[in-house]
Amino acid sequence: MIEIETRKFVAAMEIAGSVVQRGTSIEVLRQLRLHANGLLSISATDLDMGCEVRLPYSGAPASPFLLPEPARIRKAVAHSGGDSVRVVPGEDGAVSVEAGPLALAAKGVPAGDFPTHGLEALAREDLRCVLGSAEIAAIGRVARAMSAEETRYYLNGIFLHALDDWTVRAVATDGHRLFWANLKIPGAMMARDRFTGVILPRGLINLVLRRFKRAEEVALVVGVPLPFNAVEVAEGTAPARGINPRVALAANLGDLLVSFRSKTIDGTFPDYTRVIPEAHEYRVVLDIATLRRALLSLVASSAAKRPDVTIRHEGGELRCSIATDWGGKDSRACASVVMLECLGLPEGYQIAFNGRYLLDCLNSCRGARAIFGLNGGMAPASIAGDEDAGDFGMVVMPVRT
Amino acid sequence: MIEIETRKFVAAMEIAGSVVQRGTSIEVLRQLRLHANGLLSISATDLDMGCEVRLPYSGAPASPFLLPEPARIRKAVAHSGGDSVRVVPGEDGAVSVEAGPLALAAKGVPAGDFPTHGLEALAREDLRCVLGSAEIAAIGRVARAMSAEETRYYLNGIFLHALDDWTVRAVATDGHRLFWANLKIPGAMMARDRFTGVILPRGLINLVLRRFKRAEEVALVVGVPLPFNAVEVAEGTAPARGINPRVALAANLGDLLVSFRSKTIDGTFPDYTRVIPEAHEYRVVLDIATLRRALLSLVASSAAKRPDVTIRHEGGELRCSIATDWGGKDSRACASVVMLECLGLPEGYQIAFNGRYLLDCLNSCRGARAIFGLNGGMAPASIAGDEDAGDFGMVVMPVRT
Repeated sequence: MIEIETRKFVAAMEIAGSVVQRGTSIEVLRQLRLHANGLLSISATDLDMGCEVRLPYSGAPASPFLLPEPARIRKAVAHSGGDSVRVVPGEDGAVSVEAGPLALAAKGVPAGDFPTHGLEALAREDLRCVLGSAEIAAIGRVARAMSAEETRYYLNGIFLHALDDWTVRAVATDGHRLFWANLKIPGAMMARDRFTGVILPRGLINLVLRRFKRAEEVALVVGVPLPFNAVEVAEGTAPARGINPRVALAANLGDLLVSFRSKTIDGTFPDYTRVIPEAHEYRVVLDIATLRRALLSLVASSAAKRPDVTIRHEGGELRCSIATDWGGKDSRACASVVMLECLGLPEGYQIAFNGRYLLDCLNSCRGARAIFGLNGGMAPASIAGDEDAGDFGMVVMPVRT
Repeated sequence: MIEIETRKFVAAMEIAGSVVQRGTSIEVLRQLRLHANGLLSISATDLDMGCEVRLPYSGAPASPFLLPEPARIRKAVAHSGGDSVRVVPGEDGAVSVEAGPLALAAKGVPAGDFPTHGLEALAREDLRCVLGSAEIAAIGRVARAMSAEETRYYLNGIFLHALDDWTVRAVATDGHRLFWANLKIPGAMMARDRFTGVILPRGLINLVLRRFKRAEEVALVVGVPLPFNAVEVAEGTAPARGINPRVALAANLGDLLVSFRSKTIDGTFPDYTRVIPEAHEYRVVLDIATLRRALLSLVASSAAKRPDVTIRHEGGELRCSIATDWGGKDSRACASVVMLECLGLPEGYQIAFNGRYLLDCLNSCRGARAIFGLNGGMAPASIAGDEDAGDFGMVVMPVRT
């Protein structure tokens, strides 16, 4: 018998269950694998990504077994009002679960059928480092620029590469905007010759950001697993060549030890440095709260699918406007924003951006002021917050109107 | 120029806008009618139901005019950060709206095209009364049993009829359960001969419950409007016969005077009194919190579309169980609930209900204990909370399992 505190069991089932793909037709992928040996390990995989949660339990060790319908069992247990859950694996995949007045019987697939894809150990590590909460937050800000469009699959994630032994750069772009952050990783173990950059998939990033939001430290490991058909080999054996790297992210959430493992995206991230402007002709500083209010008003006014906001320099103010197709011919909603600083920007200078992308930028800035670096009206603009101190930046492409 | 406090304008636009049907192809029904004369009146209609909100403004009176895209204008104004909104009607339906830095131009349909359907005044009142917050809450509890199924359209609402000069009964049923409440209406004006009962439509009930949740008093009027083609006639003229009654519900929400008017459902509510059992063989009292936890656990365990919970008397406890198709052949999740009182219920008595309906009942009970009145295993059961004191009750049909 395995006995677990209800609150921890429910939390662990929910985290592990978040990699289970709803509605997959492969029965074993809808189940969780439990293994009680010192700690209770609960794992799940969708073949690309896996999650393992380890937590304390009381009772005897038990061989691995599978639990079907984890979401139903979790909710039933959560509602039961019992302080602890008792899970008893039986013969032929039978499992009984008891909590408070609730008793239910489940029947899992044999544990040997559970795939290890997405859960493999790494035979060789190319990078091992610890990300603090500031670095996790920076990844969260960069993640807003990830693409969701499937044709350029190599943009559906965050590209990580080494700037030096102490710094990893995270970059995301969807072709319309590009966000980058320098992550400080003092004390990292890094093989500079082998760690040439990986693309962490969007799904993993979103899960990690959601689950590790309050984690103080997250361990990040990039490495290469054993080839599929390898027999267990001694440590140090060279893995097969050409295997795409894997990534693992792990953190302690109270008593739960949570780790996500995933394939990385097998593609080449574009040379993003060519997109970042090296110098700017004009520099404009704006109050973020004021500009955000103006943009929110304009974007809300627009019925267009792409809310393009035109920005024009008129007498020391930026006049922002958007077409409101419903307001009669050529009607526009307007809002003027005072510039706090303005270096070189000529009267009548005009540029247009997708208003939603500008809002994403403002939400990603640190500080109260946004610093815009501008060139011509069709050249990409750089944006950063006044507290971003050179370790975070954004580039936004203008639109034609 | 009409100047309104932004917060009040946004609230009024949101309430009036809640009767606008999204995506209607009739342009004028997507617009709001504004009329400034002493108070600013903002009205909307979907032809069946209308809403008028009156609020204070400063500025000169203005003839009625229409505002297009009210949801966009409301959101734009709400984001603008301005303390007040200035609305200026111009020529040919043009309207300019300014708030903080925001300025936008709108173009409405001519105000004469705005339909008055759903907004008509009543030529004759059959019932006029004031509902307190307890009565509004009781309507909210009864509303859980309203049907959403369209073939029996006369069940898609709440039936109101007079029990005596001081009491109106509200009833809703979807054929599976029936909830009723007696609403106290001291000081009501009621024409007993003409007020023979009305069915208030589901949409109106849901809007009123949402908007008047915190209202202390709601005025309810049931009456008959002037016929469509009537010229203005002197008060007291008999309205045309056979016109279905209208209903109006109004309340003050701070500075906003909000009224909803609607057609009632043109149909006959079934004789519901035949459904309510006159006497019960068995009486069982249960702790609501305990039973709710057990039912929530069981319903969460079930993968069935209709989560049927079987309840069986076993040695002083009620053993509740539900089929879990995923747990192997004939597997069931079970939870036992102790009976606080049990009059007459024989050992082995068994009955089954849709678990969701039972949960709805428990959520509608007042008090900590639920009192079940039972007859045979296929007869309807009565349920009430121990604090419902005879002015609220529920009947639930059992299911075959």
